[in-house]
Amino acid sequence: MSSTGALGQLMQALRCLPGVGPKSAQRMAFHLLQRNRPGARQLAEALLDALDRIGHCAECRTLTEGTLCPVCANPQRDRSLLCVVETPAEVHAIDQAATGFQGVFFVLHGRLSPLDGIGPDELRLDLLERRFQSGEVKEAILATNTTVEGEATAHYIHAMARRDGIRTSRIAYGMPFGGELEYVDGTTLAHAFKGRREF
Amino acid sequence: MSSTGALGQLMQALRCLPGVGPKSAQRMAFHLLQRNRPGARQLAEALLDALDRIGHCAECRTLTEGTLCPVCANPQRDRSLLCVVETPAEVHAIDQAATGFQGVFFVLHGRLSPLDGIGPDELRLDLLERRFQSGEVKEAILATNTTVEGEATAHYIHAMARRDGIRTSRIAYGMPFGGELEYVDGTTLAHAFKGRREF
Repeated sequence: MSSTGALGQLMQALRCLPGVGPKSAQRMAFHLLQRNRPGARQLAEALLDALDRIGHCAECRTLTEGTLCPVCANPQRDRSLLCVVETPAEVHAIDQAATGFQGVFFVLHGRLSPLDGIGPDELRLDLLERRFQSGEVKEAILATNTTVEGEATAHYIHAMARRDGIRTSRIAYGMPFGGELEYVDGTTLAHAFKGRREF
Repeated sequence: MSSTGALGQLMQALRCLPGVGPKSAQRMAFHLLQRNRPGARQLAEALLDALDRIGHCAECRTLTEGTLCPVCANPQRDRSLLCVVETPAEVHAIDQAATGFQGVFFVLHGRLSPLDGIGPDELRLDLLERRFQSGEVKEAILATNTTVEGEATAHYIHAMARRDGIRTSRIAYGMPFGGELEYVDGTTLAHAFKGRREF
């Protein structure tokens, strides 16, 4: 049996999934065709449905089905507290964790990375600036990733917010919960010491 | 953002893939919607196409698009040598490895497992018997898995073949290539000693 035709195309198509190489794709294709044809059909339909219906929230740019995402559409959320994140997955992570965060979000869909051609326009910082200038936002929590590029993006947005007189905060650096000092990198450890609090 | 609606359904549907749990499904869904919408559409179409076009070969029961699979349709293959395997993935594995096998296959789509209600009828051993009785087959290579159930299935087919005067062989047991004696289980090691050959 050769890997051409519909079977080969399915194996190839499955490789668009993150972390799926040729061997996994082969295993998935055989599994679906032999043991779970209803599941395969459901997956195809869920994919097409999601592609058709899921777009970006008009306010915060996260992935959502309607014009506004459930967070932006909720009148109970505190619109004076704005959390800036890189991706919709992070909105999801923050909302699922017990952060107690009751504000709203802004999703950048990336981070500043001039070498990759990603500047303020690509991140739609103009939309963010408009929100800052509306006078609604009192504090911006900068929750971009703690990488070099995420850090640079946070600095850029901090400068922008300051021009509009908005207070900014950066999520804390330190030891991850359950982490062991021995295995944590030096920079994190240095931050953990610098940011120590009275017991 | 809650995990309901089209996004939640996509995450749920992705879990039909083998080895994909809730976290991976979430990562895959966000990846497809944010970064690879064309890939997601291609995957959906490949799934539907495969479901529509791929069925079972009329002779060997492997997965194929036409009535006959490329192996059964190939007049160059030696039809007197029949290899019995459990799944289409194994046909693929044997054809891709340098086994030099030039015969044809028969796919059981499972193994005898009375406790799970899988008997000779479910494996379509009637079709296999018809091939044995046609007089075309000279040798049957029993390449079911080397598990207890695969072994029992091989014994059952061996008895069937003997009634029709057909020679059977079983794939060799022994050390996997590149394996280390220290880490191989006792049964394999015992088989490797019993099956030793003159150097």
